[in-house]
Amino acid sequence: MLRVAYDGTNYQGWQIQENGNTIEAELNKALTTLLQEEVIVVGASRTDSGVHALGNVAAFTTSSSIPADKLSYAVNRYLPEDIRVVESREVSLDFHPRYCRTKKTYEYRILNAKFPNPMKRAFTHFTYWDCDYERMQEAAKSFVGRHDFKAFCTVGSQVKTTVREITDIDVLRVDDEIIIRVTGTGFLYNMVRIIAGTLLEIGYGRKDVYCIPSIIESGNRKLAGPTAPAKGLTLIKYEFLDEEGMVTQSGR
Amino acid sequence: MLRVAYDGTNYQGWQIQENGNTIEAELNKALTTLLQEEVIVVGASRTDSGVHALGNVAAFTTSSSIPADKLSYAVNRYLPEDIRVVESREVSLDFHPRYCRTKKTYEYRILNAKFPNPMKRAFTHFTYWDCDYERMQEAAKSFVGRHDFKAFCTVGSQVKTTVREITDIDVLRVDDEIIIRVTGTGFLYNMVRIIAGTLLEIGYGRKDVYCIPSIIESGNRKLAGPTAPAKGLTLIKYEFLDEEGMVTQSGR
Repeated sequence: MLRVAYDGTNYQGWQIQENGNTIEAELNKALTTLLQEEVIVVGASRTDSGVHALGNVAAFTTSSSIPADKLSYAVNRYLPEDIRVVESREVSLDFHPRYCRTKKTYEYRILNAKFPNPMKRAFTHFTYWDCDYERMQEAAKSFVGRHDFKAFCTVGSQVKTTVREITDIDVLRVDDEIIIRVTGTGFLYNMVRIIAGTLLEIGYGRKDVYCIPSIIESGNRKLAGPTAPAKGLTLIKYEFLDEEGMVTQSGR
Repeated sequence: MLRVAYDGTNYQGWQIQENGNTIEAELNKALTTLLQEEVIVVGASRTDSGVHALGNVAAFTTSSSIPADKLSYAVNRYLPEDIRVVESREVSLDFHPRYCRTKKTYEYRILNAKFPNPMKRAFTHFTYWDCDYERMQEAAKSFVGRHDFKAFCTVGSQVKTTVREITDIDVLRVDDEIIIRVTGTGFLYNMVRIIAGTLLEIGYGRKDVYCIPSIIESGNRKLAGPTAPAKGLTLIKYEFLDEEGMVTQSGR
């Protein structure tokens, strides 16, 4: 199992595509070169084009005898510098990162200042307009729990159910940034970015602080805010849970 | 007067060169297009290739009638997104950013972790080796004051005197980063990067915590540490002082 960090700016997301640079393709290529056998990784989260990660997870099988914990250092020599394997570890053969019970933590970063900061341009969504993070913080509480998040999912996504559980959400102000930090056991397509876009509307005063429950209730995507840009979003960490829901493997 | 922020990654530094992208050239081009007259800026600090800034300063004269405080917004439309003018203000005609009494603050950022972080790769110097920031913090105190910093200047620099004054220096640990923050009334060529390189040697335990006074005393560049890489360095702010040494104009 690998934990993978990347700057998603120059990639068309995680998942392999016919035309385009992807994180998955780079990992397969680097591992195949290093291990001299064909490697195909299975990713935990297929992050979108432009989304970043500090702790995405991938798994693969190999007959190589390189000690699992040394593999991270070795494979990094074959990866571009905007992708780093930050941990490698042996797991049981039946481990599948997408069928495990997991908790994921995302951060959405908003730069709320008079001018964009060139040094933060790749990892924050810039907004000039005054944004009241305390309104966002208050509103965010309504997301916590098990809800049908259909209104916070891009229309057309094919999933069996749109019920998901958010276990924690917080909105922080750190210098000129507003950071939305959200943890849940699963997320729908674009869900965090739509949550961020909706909280921004609340921060601007365009939507009511207590509008979230009725938007969830409606199941109507049009009542939520816009999908905030990809570059503000980072997958921070993945935690694997045991049958009682306790964290068994964590780290970032 | 303009305050200018930039990500220096893709530039050959501030100063115009025959071959190569520079911040100064981009500013001249954007201002000339906007104001429809030839503009040549005078920069306060000619930062090196790869060095970043949140608050460098530039001045120019113009016959344009655009209100000075609106100019920042207007010129940003003509600049690439890795350069932003973050403040514009009218100053007296005799203002020259390099002949003023000033205080400059730089930050040198070191990522001290097991693995590089792709999201911080452009703005930090990565080091895998254990680095004791408390040793660096203790050692740094010896830099404060008015000293002959010849040992902390790249050999061959042409300056009248190598005496400079450091008014403040601090070494902080913030998560996996060590940040060296240094303020002074003037700096020699590569001085902050050589200070950072020397403090790193002390952090690693390769040099004694109390070696700084004797290195300063020696005036010998070879006794100081290596010049730390450019990408870890950011010019944070410029403050202009009046005749009593009080700050008259500040900001970042």
